[in-house]
Amino acid sequence: MKTFVLLFQCKDKKGIVARLSDFIFRQGGNIVDADQHSTDPSGGHFFIRLEFLVEDKHCDKNFLESGLVTIAGEFNAEYRIYDKDDILRMGIFVSRPDHCLFDLIYLWRSGELRVDIPFVISNYERHREFVQQYKIPFYFVPATREERKESELLAHAASSDFLVLARYMFLLSGDFLASYGKDIINIHHGFLPSFKGANPYKQALEKGVKVIGATAHFVTEKLDEGPIIAQAVEYVSHEDRLENLVRKGKNLEKRALASAVVSYVDYRIIKYKDKTIVF
Amino acid sequence: MKTFVLLFQCKDKKGIVARLSDFIFRQGGNIVDADQHSTDPSGGHFFIRLEFLVEDKHCDKNFLESGLVTIAGEFNAEYRIYDKDDILRMGIFVSRPDHCLFDLIYLWRSGELRVDIPFVISNYERHREFVQQYKIPFYFVPATREERKESELLAHAASSDFLVLARYMFLLSGDFLASYGKDIINIHHGFLPSFKGANPYKQALEKGVKVIGATAHFVTEKLDEGPIIAQAVEYVSHEDRLENLVRKGKNLEKRALASAVVSYVDYRIIKYKDKTIVF
Amino acid sequence: MKTFVLLFQCKDKKGIVARLSDFIFRQGGNIVDADQHSTDPSGGHFFIRLEFLVEDKHCDKNFLESGLVTIAGEFNAEYRIYDKDDILRMGIFVSRPDHCLFDLIYLWRSGELRVDIPFVISNYERHREFVQQYKIPFYFVPATREERKESELLAHAASSDFLVLARYMFLLSGDFLASYGKDIINIHHGFLPSFKGANPYKQALEKGVKVIGATAHFVTEKLDEGPIIAQAVEYVSHEDRLENLVRKGKNLEKRALASAVVSYVDYRIIKYKDKTIVF
Amino acid sequence: MKTFVLLFQCKDKKGIVARLSDFIFRQGGNIVDADQHSTDPSGGHFFIRLEFLVEDKHCDKNFLESGLVTIAGEFNAEYRIYDKDDILRMGIFVSRPDHCLFDLIYLWRSGELRVDIPFVISNYERHREFVQQYKIPFYFVPATREERKESELLAHAASSDFLVLARYMFLLSGDFLASYGKDIINIHHGFLPSFKGANPYKQALEKGVKVIGATAHFVTEKLDEGPIIAQAVEYVSHEDRLENLVRKGKNLEKRALASAVVSYVDYRIIKYKDKTIVF
Repeated sequence: MKTFVLLFQCKDKKGIVARLSDFIFRQGGNIVDADQHSTDPSGGHFFIRLEFLVEDKHCDKNFLESGLVTIAGEFNAEYRIYDKDDILRMGIFVSRPDHCLFDLIYLWRSGELRVDIPFVISNYERHREFVQQYKIPFYFVPATREERKESELLAHAASSDFLVLARYMFLLSGDFLASYGKDIINIHHGFLPSFKGANPYKQALEKGVKVIGATAHFVTEKLDEGPIIAQAVEYVSHEDRLENLVRKGKNLEKRALASAVVSYVDYRIIKYKDKTIVF
Repeated sequence: MKTFVLLFQCKDKKGIVARLSDFIFRQGGNIVDADQHSTDPSGGHFFIRLEFLVEDKHCDKNFLESGLVTIAGEFNAEYRIYDKDDILRMGIFVSRPDHCLFDLIYLWRSGELRVDIPFVISNYERHREFVQQYKIPFYFVPATREERKESELLAHAASSDFLVLARYMFLLSGDFLASYGKDIINIHHGFLPSFKGANPYKQALEKGVKVIGATAHFVTEKLDEGPIIAQAVEYVSHEDRLENLVRKGKNLEKRALASAVVSYVDYRIIKYKDKTIVF
Repeated sequence: MKTFVLLFQCKDKKGIVARLSDFIFRQGGNIVDADQHSTDPSGGHFFIRLEFLVEDKHCDKNFLESGLVTIAGEFNAEYRIYDKDDILRMGIFVSRPDHCLFDLIYLWRSGELRVDIPFVISNYERHREFVQQYKIPFYFVPATREERKESELLAHAASSDFLVLARYMFLLSGDFLASYGKDIINIHHGFLPSFKGANPYKQALEKGVKVIGATAHFVTEKLDEGPIIAQAVEYVSHEDRLENLVRKGKNLEKRALASAVVSYVDYRIIKYKDKTIVF
Repeated sequence: MKTFVLLFQCKDKKGIVARLSDFIFRQGGNIVDADQHSTDPSGGHFFIRLEFLVEDKHCDKNFLESGLVTIAGEFNAEYRIYDKDDILRMGIFVSRPDHCLFDLIYLWRSGELRVDIPFVISNYERHREFVQQYKIPFYFVPATREERKESELLAHAASSDFLVLARYMFLLSGDFLASYGKDIINIHHGFLPSFKGANPYKQALEKGVKVIGATAHFVTEKLDEGPIIAQAVEYVSHEDRLENLVRKGKNLEKRALASAVVSYVDYRIIKYKDKTIVF
């Protein structure tokens, strides 16, 4: 029994659901989860996520692709099909703050996050012991603002299917993004679009906001501007001094990042323009 | 251009989505919202809500029914089909506390809640002026615990498609429920299943809870035991004396009830056993 | 039995609490609520709110002032003393959107908001009927962006102790603020400091945020920049089209504004620099 | 420079704040945080937490006690005074689920939770490696429902100032509680008072609730009945199958327990009757 996930998007048109569900039925599949979204009920963009079980051992991803490519052609659509048995390899970049690293490792270890972790890269040597106890390769790459050592990072990153910047302090260049070519998820410790850049909690304190937040988003070339995947927020008051905002914020960062990564690994995210659909 | 909503449930089986979406496609319909749920991916109960647009003026509810009845037979399914142009008539029962009444009237008046209100019934005469200014019939039925005047209530209720008990203090009997025969939504001012019955905020205060809640649910014969539709919660502390719990609670009641009623009117709720699926 | 509230702030120094509580004790007062805040435990700015009961009928605000003025001199402090029996007069400015108006009137009518409402001013004539049924004077002031009729507004505003802009669409000038000279609370339908200015929900939709918010703040000359009093937030998703964001947002606006106004009327707010302490 | 925390409670009476703050002032202390609560403004029970700095090196806890004992006598009060430099020793009991253990260790390691951890006791041998890497003594005590080995537990517990049951599956007897004689904090994986006892998430699923919660409370002889310290809640829907409730619940448990323990260690909790004041 195999489980597949199909993500499919195109300009809205009649009959897409019928065509796709008929196709799945013909392969002997049973749809166990269907989520659909249209940007505009009277003719916008159409998105669907279909999760289905297939009993036939001969039905694999390639086999399904051969049929889907035809349907996609009919609707001028983009699609991706995933076999849920394939485990994604999640590379981690992290600087000194370790709460997100700790949390990701816990989620992975406890089976809540179904990934392999091919490596953890850090400019902070002291994370080595914690990481290596779980038999995860640890690479110390002492980047600085002037010398980010991107070619070294890139060489390591090659063994991953996607990257998580779990509080990584250096901006990755457009060249790096282009060469890596796969998805990168970042956690920003602020409620975007407010408080971009450095020290967002300090900015929040100075502004006197009554709510703080954290934002997980895809990385693009523009600092803290990529499509938002998940946000978490908490109420604060004048009593919360900076260290308290940071403490509460760490919680929010863990929650937003975990939520984003779990959705990603479960193939629930579709990027569309500068935004995301998270089914 | 007409919009229909189909709610469909049956034992899970291959091909249901294909069959339904094909049927809709053949009527010239375009699915604009699809939500599906299975209680168990490897064979449980299947639920779907399909919202679709049809351009053909000749395609009405009866026409669709004639096709759906066949499909339902194939899958041994239950279904309901709604024309979104049909406006439901929401009868309101209310005792002295008026915050939910006020809120429902506001939502109706502002167009956020697409219903007709055929009447407001109360055992509290003073709501008359507020209700009548909106040209809504008001019936004063001075029920007491001993004499609930259910036949009078029932006579009025006949002109409604469903009832909302917007803080109505009297228990409706099994006979009333059976005679009325349609859905009744109640707001309970406590976080069920804790704190059933009277004075839930006092119970919460005495227990020293740090969170309070309100619960909107379908009415069944058992007090505060029917299927839960929506709940709202808020953090409290030792500083919140009873009047403060009541004040915060009124907000929660409004939010939970509004959420439940809006979902109901948008045909997003399926009852299943003692629970609800709220798409 | 009279209840007073003292708000007191100065540079932090030893003995302030002792001095104030001794003073209150000598007047026969019993402190029933004490809240204190220091911006920095090792010497910053000190704030306190003391609520106390006095039985002596001869002890009034003026009598207390005469003692407090000496203490304030000793600590180079600012203070305000309030008799909780004095009811504040809350003037309301509102444009077409009526949800906050409706909510404030409800809170006032139900006794949850202890104010008098000397007037409602609107550039939207149709609010008249709703407002006048509660015997509240209604003034139609047909302001436009070019002609805001501030002298007319100012003449009416004179009968208020503070103003609430319950979704009022026109910017008040620095001259107006200076002439009025009292506090003005505004509700902004966005999560400040993000999304200032017009159409914040549209901005939020375009940015693809996963949380929306509303902000109640004091009005200053800079648009949407004054000290924040209260914020309310809610999670949203790609499923929330603009009308849904607006609907959810209206709830948030009501909650943030009600919270701010209740705190204000209970003398719980101290302005300090560009921020607020809300006890 | 030393920081002390005074917790003081008695029947409400005039002059308590004056008396205490005068005392602190005479010792050269500066109050940096004051929180006060009365159960009833017109004469109930009075609680205060005063945090103050003292520069004088000769002023220690014993010295302060000698003065406080007199004041407590005057008001027939109970009090406790703490030197914030004294680090509490937090013993941990844990069964197989390790998320709370993991979180407490992280908080301790990162300095967010200022405690010593004299031991971790578990009936699950496999936690040994994780615990010992932090040089924390680990004791494997293979308790069962029939043989809880309380004398062995008690012998180890002696080296702690309080205990945390971080998902410990065995009920501690009244004898154990009496012999240990100090505070014990438990995390219950349900929203008390609903869903006591075993499998609360299963109970929640069956009831069809739309919100789940976790509760940190002091342990008393009655199962899941002790004074509640902190609760955390999250919205759920029909889509959340049992494993999802468990996953979300683990987050809630971590949050509620961390919040309770941080408050405890900061001396912010006063027990009163069956409830808590958490300043």
